[in-house]
Amino acid sequence: MKKVNIILMGFGNVGQAFLRVVHEKEDLCRKRYGLDIKFHSIFRQGGALYSSHPLNPGEILEKYSSLSLFQENPHWKSGIPLTEALESIRSGVLVECTPTNIKNGEPGLNHTHQALDRGWHVVTANKGPLVVDFPGLKEKARENRVDLRFSGATAAALPTLDVALYSLAGTEISRIEGILNGTTNYILTRMKEGIEYQKALKEAQSRGIAEPDPTLDVEGWDTASKILIISNAVLHTDFSLADVKVDGITAVPSHLLNEGKEEGRALKLLGKISKEADRFHLEVSLTLIDKDHPLFGVDGTNKGITFLTDTMDSITVIGGKSDPRGTGASLLKDIINIYFWDR
Amino acid sequence: MKKVNIILMGFGNVGQAFLRVVHEKEDLCRKRYGLDIKFHSIFRQGGALYSSHPLNPGEILEKYSSLSLFQENPHWKSGIPLTEALESIRSGVLVECTPTNIKNGEPGLNHTHQALDRGWHVVTANKGPLVVDFPGLKEKARENRVDLRFSGATAAALPTLDVALYSLAGTEISRIEGILNGTTNYILTRMKEGIEYQKALKEAQSRGIAEPDPTLDVEGWDTASKILIISNAVLHTDFSLADVKVDGITAVPSHLLNEGKEEGRALKLLGKISKEADRFHLEVSLTLIDKDHPLFGVDGTNKGITFLTDTMDSITVIGGKSDPRGTGASLLKDIINIYFWDR
Repeated sequence: MKKVNIILMGFGNVGQAFLRVVHEKEDLCRKRYGLDIKFHSIFRQGGALYSSHPLNPGEILEKYSSLSLFQENPHWKSGIPLTEALESIRSGVLVECTPTNIKNGEPGLNHTHQALDRGWHVVTANKGPLVVDFPGLKEKARENRVDLRFSGATAAALPTLDVALYSLAGTEISRIEGILNGTTNYILTRMKEGIEYQKALKEAQSRGIAEPDPTLDVEGWDTASKILIISNAVLHTDFSLADVKVDGITAVPSHLLNEGKEEGRALKLLGKISKEADRFHLEVSLTLIDKDHPLFGVDGTNKGITFLTDTMDSITVIGGKSDPRGTGASLLKDIINIYFWDR
Repeated sequence: MKKVNIILMGFGNVGQAFLRVVHEKEDLCRKRYGLDIKFHSIFRQGGALYSSHPLNPGEILEKYSSLSLFQENPHWKSGIPLTEALESIRSGVLVECTPTNIKNGEPGLNHTHQALDRGWHVVTANKGPLVVDFPGLKEKARENRVDLRFSGATAAALPTLDVALYSLAGTEISRIEGILNGTTNYILTRMKEGIEYQKALKEAQSRGIAEPDPTLDVEGWDTASKILIISNAVLHTDFSLADVKVDGITAVPSHLLNEGKEEGRALKLLGKISKEADRFHLEVSLTLIDKDHPLFGVDGTNKGITFLTDTMDSITVIGGKSDPRGTGASLLKDIINIYFWDR
């Protein structure tokens, strides 16, 4: 049995969903993977649950998950720095679930650096640090011989990175196209059905699909962030967000909308990576696809990604829960894959 | 740079395609994965190309690939036993590409045992040994702390096993459905278009899609073998081929054929694993699916598989080259994944 120590950063929807999934899967992790996963500390703004003994996930989820009650937990330590938690045990996995900030990556970027510096693996659902400095973080992980994994940052339970890095190992990928944002795909699907943009957006918000401030989604920046991370991680590029040509769905030209309503056609917001003259190009663009396109049937909040390779032709993956629980499950997956395959 | 020694068993279409893919990717394997892949010996009926220095893949492909010329190669050694090759170097990967025999697994089963016994990894495109004794082989690999991988035996470049074992790590899979045989899917697609069975089969044979003796494909045994291997490998079951209820496409009932021709419906030969009362059931059956089914658009020689999980919902993979070159690429992928992720 391998012991896996977790420091969880952030206890919003994703952090809580992650704790719940791990708690539900304790037995399975032990029996199937030989992993004994323990929560060492859980950080939230202002401090952490922190103890010399592993925390009790069931009790935390039941009694202390709301923000007001969290600090009533007897293990709450106000103002404790992450460095103290990282240095109190030899190694483990820092799980980063603080909010995404694509401008400067903080506070996640700092957390990630601190953990890698001290020989901890990092598994992150936070796109910010990866958008801002993937090459730097990757290099630091390599130097310290630890893993940096981020399935949860690139379309939750849809296995975009695994398939590219693992299932397509040894191929040259010349093109990637993805429907990577559930909110915009839901709105476009409703618009195809005749609902106008503002109404479809409100509906998505009231159903909890779109956030109260949907800017990053509807203006294409969420898709751009994901395609950027995928490119830098899979194709070894060194792009920043400024290199991505980004379209949104806030002002769909009416001719595109009309053509997309035709039988056998659909209008999709695609994240695209293509290769011309040995250089990759990244863009997020409203694209009309027809029914032969492998992503044609990907409607509503569903997601999908397709890879064009040299020796394996085209491979497409579709589906995967895209809510906090799906993200929590993909964080657990990354942790299992760090430890389980090591002989 | 890690040195990877290969013993290749079988030099038919798949073995040759594998040698060609590795030869094309020599540079990529060195630069991207730090792997120096060398062919130690290539066995074919009656003997092997065998030398104390690595073989020259380019020369073999160019001058000695046909059966009659193979033995003209100066490195040809008649009657040499596999054990001698296995014992002449410390370790490596035996790549099994001899013909599939689902009755007794031979000669692949014997090759696989010999390699595992001597601490060699095995990567196989041969379903026979896995159909006949997967539990025994898996246990032997575990005892000897080596890898046994078989992506190429479960739908070539379509990543069925990777996705199940790696991308869905930590989930409980309750249902698997796959279109796993290109020949039958091609014939059913043509039958939907109005061509009758015998004519569609002949067409598939003349196009090199179906084999001269198509029995294993059209009677469902190829799909049954794949779903059996997937079940035993992914769901840790202990089934044999006798446990799979197998349908073929040789006598499609006319009502199914007619319903399958309706708009928005399709008749598919699905390999299925389902769970009832905590027990898995395996079958290969002609199934009518409608356009909401994730495999609805998988036509012609295309393949696909869908997994239903608890924490990640449904995930579907579609595509992947399914000819010898695709199988060769998936053998290389398995080799890379054995060596590259080891820290």
